[in-house]
Amino acid sequence: MASAVTPPRGMRDILPAEKSTRERVLARIRSVYRAHGFDEIETPVVEDAARLFSGLGGDNEKLAYAVMKRGLTMDDLAAAETPLDLADLGLRFDLTVPLARFYASNRAQLPNVFRALQVAPVWRAERPQKGRYRQFVQCDIDIIGEPGIVAEVELITATAAALDALGIPGCSIRINDRRILTSMLTALGFAAESHSAVLISLDKLDKIAPSGVVAELTERGMPAAALAALQGVPAFAAFGAEAATHVAPAAAEALTADSITAVLPAGVDEQALADLAAIAAAVAASSAVPLVFDPFLVRGMGYYTGPIFEVAHPELGYSLGGGGRYDGMIGRFLGADVPATGFSLGFERIIDLVALDDGDDASASALLYDADADLGAVMALKAQLVGDGARVRLLARPKNMKAALERLTAEGFTRFAVVSAETPADAASLDWRRLEAAS
Amino acid sequence: MASAVTPPRGMRDILPAEKSTRERVLARIRSVYRAHGFDEIETPVVEDAARLFSGLGGDNEKLAYAVMKRGLTMDDLAAAETPLDLADLGLRFDLTVPLARFYASNRAQLPNVFRALQVAPVWRAERPQKGRYRQFVQCDIDIIGEPGIVAEVELITATAAALDALGIPGCSIRINDRRILTSMLTALGFAAESHSAVLISLDKLDKIAPSGVVAELTERGMPAAALAALQGVPAFAAFGAEAATHVAPAAAEALTADSITAVLPAGVDEQALADLAAIAAAVAASSAVPLVFDPFLVRGMGYYTGPIFEVAHPELGYSLGGGGRYDGMIGRFLGADVPATGFSLGFERIIDLVALDDGDDASASALLYDADADLGAVMALKAQLVGDGARVRLLARPKNMKAALERLTAEGFTRFAVVSAETPADAASLDWRRLEAAS
Repeated sequence: MASAVTPPRGMRDILPAEKSTRERVLARIRSVYRAHGFDEIETPVVEDAARLFSGLGGDNEKLAYAVMKRGLTMDDLAAAETPLDLADLGLRFDLTVPLARFYASNRAQLPNVFRALQVAPVWRAERPQKGRYRQFVQCDIDIIGEPGIVAEVELITATAAALDALGIPGCSIRINDRRILTSMLTALGFAAESHSAVLISLDKLDKIAPSGVVAELTERGMPAAALAALQGVPAFAAFGAEAATHVAPAAAEALTADSITAVLPAGVDEQALADLAAIAAAVAASSAVPLVFDPFLVRGMGYYTGPIFEVAHPELGYSLGGGGRYDGMIGRFLGADVPATGFSLGFERIIDLVALDDGDDASASALLYDADADLGAVMALKAQLVGDGARVRLLARPKNMKAALERLTAEGFTRFAVVSAETPADAASLDWRRLEAAS
Repeated sequence: MASAVTPPRGMRDILPAEKSTRERVLARIRSVYRAHGFDEIETPVVEDAARLFSGLGGDNEKLAYAVMKRGLTMDDLAAAETPLDLADLGLRFDLTVPLARFYASNRAQLPNVFRALQVAPVWRAERPQKGRYRQFVQCDIDIIGEPGIVAEVELITATAAALDALGIPGCSIRINDRRILTSMLTALGFAAESHSAVLISLDKLDKIAPSGVVAELTERGMPAAALAALQGVPAFAAFGAEAATHVAPAAAEALTADSITAVLPAGVDEQALADLAAIAAAVAASSAVPLVFDPFLVRGMGYYTGPIFEVAHPELGYSLGGGGRYDGMIGRFLGADVPATGFSLGFERIIDLVALDDGDDASASALLYDADADLGAVMALKAQLVGDGARVRLLARPKNMKAALERLTAEGFTRFAVVSAETPADAASLDWRRLEAAS
């Protein structure tokens, strides 16, 4: 067993310095969302397989880890009609399916309008690649039971406040509405049964540009008239110049009903237009975050029914998070329709951008004790220092003092003192030396 | 799907009030252990099945959840020689096996003496019963790379400080040493190959009393002379009076080498006696926690090699946590011997005992907005209040005002104001009313 010992494939360990940063960032996120009225909840990491593999999770379901039934026998294996017959649980692949189940289980104890916060890991067996892991943390806020746009406005302003509190400036929120997309496709002449396929192509607009979308749709046999109409949509035609970025400034207008209709064909959903304009007005009244209308924002999941949004960062080619309204989904567990909308931040994408100060380790102190020092006296010194608010690390006085001090400095310790048999057991009498980080 | 929707069997959801308390308690525990020099780490919730099911976890291995390989075919099922052939991962059942793997994977980046903190859930498919769940949080501190008793002393004082910071008074630490147990059994005349069986019986002393232990060992055919010698051990004979409690005050003595040998037969391990006395002296110099020698403390896991300990609470029939030295275990992953000792707190047992104040929700504010209120103005008020440090909950002004206010009060909100079309968008002008909890 002396060969390389590694974490499971596609997963990773989190070492002390990174763990410390992550916990401070998570605490900050919790604090902001709590101030904005959200209540944190927690669900088990597994859900019953029948619920998890019920089609609500789209492609993510295929990436889920299934948990085997306990006590299986060889007879069970022989009797199985599919491998999934041997599983009764699965690790969650998102926080939305568990939230829907949670709400169905606990509705009687929750407020009529429930603002949920979840900060928790999810698991997906994606192909391992640099910077993407099979276990990762999501930060989701959801508002369940509120049909009006106040829900979208609270989600957007709270998320913008969280990004602001983490020292991530320059973000904007791209927004669209599934009703706009659907009514636009109808107005352009795409048949209802082709909408899903068209949306899948439009979702790749920033990767394959308008010409790639048209080629793909032509190949799929879409009507030439509809394709011509699509190419006549001002926002579509203007997209190409910025194809390499995830934000589409050419499509970005001051967000009013007039500015939206100016870039769209006639015939798009009037209620959706009015809702977007009202969301924009209320967000502008309470937040400095720019809200950008993006008529080709699609979001992958099939369950969205109304406004959808994503966080764009000026220097990144991917979004930091996103969400939208999914009014039909909770009802599938509950047997009664309940409106819902949510916003998920990708914690693993955010953590690299965070600029927080280093915390309060100014009093991080190392006690280097000689072999002849009395252990009780050393421990009494440690107790005094901890009581005074310090963080204290004990260390047997090393042979290689220089290397040990460099190591302590790298770990954030700022001072050290040597304790010997002659040192009085009184922290005030210690001879402190500074540890200075080499710059 | 309108039938009862519940969490997976033996698991549970955590609702807002409880989640809030848990996070505050976890933050307090992290803060104390960090001050005492421990570094928090995190590992994936799953480990490779070959490592998890390698015999290190004792009986807990049998309770582990196995994760199925992805992409299994019916041919794979037919080719499997045991059900576990279909699993490549498993959910961790404790934090010790993952720590040993973590240390083997990351040793080059860690200090020579590594003080680890882990605060994380583990999973065991135990028979569901009241108050015990199949997913539960453990708080483990471990010191790896330190062969001396300074490690035990730091673990014990830090854990005592954590319990103190959580407002759980009256705890004591019961301590023993595996070397004392083993040498005592040899001195009493039990053959080395019977020690495991005798320890299993002794571990039940507080449940079945000395008479039950003797009956069980007699049934197992242990030599009559050894059993008579055991009954002659002062601490064993004195145990009966307190059989119903987990602490054995009759065996509790001021902890010195003399007081220990007074209750034990001749011939117990001298080094272990000296170590326990030195641990007791150093703990007494730096902590007020009572350290109680318990010559029949066994701890279940087979991997312990030296001092072992448990937290006893005066009003509870079970321990709040425990641990000990396990010098051989890390080496099994690393291929080189590394000394280690750890202390685990059972978070789920502690959380019910915690007495923390309610946090800083004195400014928890509800805004009840009329249907005619401008949403932008409402959101601007919310933003002002959040900026001033308040927690703010929006609520459409309800028909049943009384019920809504009672609900807000129960959720910890302390004041409310009504916002209508006439309310100026200035938080200073709001007409606040107090929400008083009915006593």
